[in-house]
Amino acid sequence: MRPVCVIGLGLIGGSVLRAAHAAGRAVWGFTDGAADVSAAESAGYEITASVDDALAKAVAEDAIVVLAVPLPAIGQILARVTAIAPECLLTDVVSVKGPVVSSVRKLAPAARFAGGHPMAGAAESGWAAGSASLFDKAAWVITVEPDTSVDTWRIMAELALDCGAHVVPTTADEHDAAVARVSHLPHVLAAVLAATGADGGPLAMALAAGSFTDGTRVAGARLDLILAMCEGNRAELLAAVDEALGKLGAARGALASTGSLRATIHSGNLGRATLTEHRRRPRTSAMIDLTSPDALEALRILGERGGRVLSIAGDIAQVDVPEAQP
Amino acid sequence: MRPVCVIGLGLIGGSVLRAAHAAGRAVWGFTDGAADVSAAESAGYEITASVDDALAKAVAEDAIVVLAVPLPAIGQILARVTAIAPECLLTDVVSVKGPVVSSVRKLAPAARFAGGHPMAGAAESGWAAGSASLFDKAAWVITVEPDTSVDTWRIMAELALDCGAHVVPTTADEHDAAVARVSHLPHVLAAVLAATGADGGPLAMALAAGSFTDGTRVAGARLDLILAMCEGNRAELLAAVDEALGKLGAARGALASTGSLRATIHSGNLGRATLTEHRRRPRTSAMIDLTSPDALEALRILGERGGRVLSIAGDIAQVDVPEAQP
Repeated sequence: MRPVCVIGLGLIGGSVLRAAHAAGRAVWGFTDGAADVSAAESAGYEITASVDDALAKAVAEDAIVVLAVPLPAIGQILARVTAIAPECLLTDVVSVKGPVVSSVRKLAPAARFAGGHPMAGAAESGWAAGSASLFDKAAWVITVEPDTSVDTWRIMAELALDCGAHVVPTTADEHDAAVARVSHLPHVLAAVLAATGADGGPLAMALAAGSFTDGTRVAGARLDLILAMCEGNRAELLAAVDEALGKLGAARGALASTGSLRATIHSGNLGRATLTEHRRRPRTSAMIDLTSPDALEALRILGERGGRVLSIAGDIAQVDVPEAQP
Repeated sequence: MRPVCVIGLGLIGGSVLRAAHAAGRAVWGFTDGAADVSAAESAGYEITASVDDALAKAVAEDAIVVLAVPLPAIGQILARVTAIAPECLLTDVVSVKGPVVSSVRKLAPAARFAGGHPMAGAAESGWAAGSASLFDKAAWVITVEPDTSVDTWRIMAELALDCGAHVVPTTADEHDAAVARVSHLPHVLAAVLAATGADGGPLAMALAAGSFTDGTRVAGARLDLILAMCEGNRAELLAAVDEALGKLGAARGALASTGSLRATIHSGNLGRATLTEHRRRPRTSAMIDLTSPDALEALRILGERGGRVLSIAGDIAQVDVPEAQP
């Protein structure tokens, strides 16, 4: 099994290191946090505070290099990749894909790259909050772009599968549009709700129950992490915010004019039912031959339909996809 | 202990019946749902399908009548109260207080009334979803209006305490403004988020993780219940929606112009921290003498400060209130 070099040992990077190790892979990591170096070393991991050393070892062992630093730090790390390991096997776990794909094309064009994004998180951040089981049954996006090599894609998909995730293949653009709706917009709305609720003073806080607690949970996440994620997906998030503004404005208008929120709440009922149905609907199994010339397109269409890769054996990806609605 | 007559046996009414019974009170209930009559009777409760019979027994035993029907049905029930039990001890568990207080003043002016609202819920609705422990450690508003009798207030507060809740005293107007922010606005925003997310198609649903699942949970609640709650609080909810629209519009403008969401996310961090702090902050104990001429005003101020009544012994209410911030 191919070794794994993780650059950045926060919640996600630290969990990739642990999960890949638990799967039997050789692993090592880089972090510039002295406390994290010693915590990870105490846990038995090989850690270095030199990104160049970590990358040099990746060259020597033809390891997968996993970039697990926040988006604003990606350019700086890619400069070291090009200097030390220009042709390395490269992936990342950043929550926005378009900017990473562009940066890699520009700054590390020789790298054998497919982008990644595990859809997993936790209330706490940092090395200490990580766990080998963070990705169990989670979706893990591995990007398919026109210039993606199927061999490279497969190497990254196998790492994600080893970590306990299932793999969702999609383009960077489709990924960014989808997560703007289901990951970044929730953070913006949670912030708006938390601020509006707190403006109600101590009585409002005393009366806050489940709907407010759930609706504001992610408003408690770390400022710099939310900003890196949301601001990095500016164009797609703008479109999602505009859609939400339109719906909220329509609710406002209906409430003011007729007093009815039926259309708003009904569409919310339908939206939530769509999520529940997606998770419960029977799924059809299928196979994708990774040696086929159409493999990349078949993977992309699978992702678009809500499908996922569950395992890879030989050259065959075992996949499933929600059954069409009756 | 004073007996309790519960009119309406959905989630909340059914739970009040069970909790009051568990506290050792005589209880009986009315529902017009035949299935609920037999389910509640099978559980050993005295249930009638005649609201007049239930109210006549309340007169005979000077019981507390708890209105646990949706807001749109309140007027119809109050007409029966005035016909059968005009001077009864009356409270309610409706999630909006202004319209109930107005309706009682108009339709049942002789009733000994103090409004109520237990801040508790569950994913499911109806008799079967209820439980005697639903109100454990929950906030339960009992309203204090200028014309509220302290004796009546106390009788309703003791019922709420018996059910395991703590009591938050506040006016109907202050209640409605607070819950617009922390209970009704969350439902509107959850609906907007659920609809915007589902518009992203199967890929978005496949990538939806904790932030979307939590942020849309209450969008799955029953349409008629959400509508009765939100539309019944129209004026206050409009103000809260306008505040949210202003904040979301500001986020949109900042993202479009400078690319920064710092102000939005920072205010969300602060709002969530305010909730967390309210729940963790040390609380100062105090007493309110219910025979004092200022008792009602002292109770109202207690609620405004985020305080609560924990027990009543003799004429003394034991209360606590969050310590002032340093």
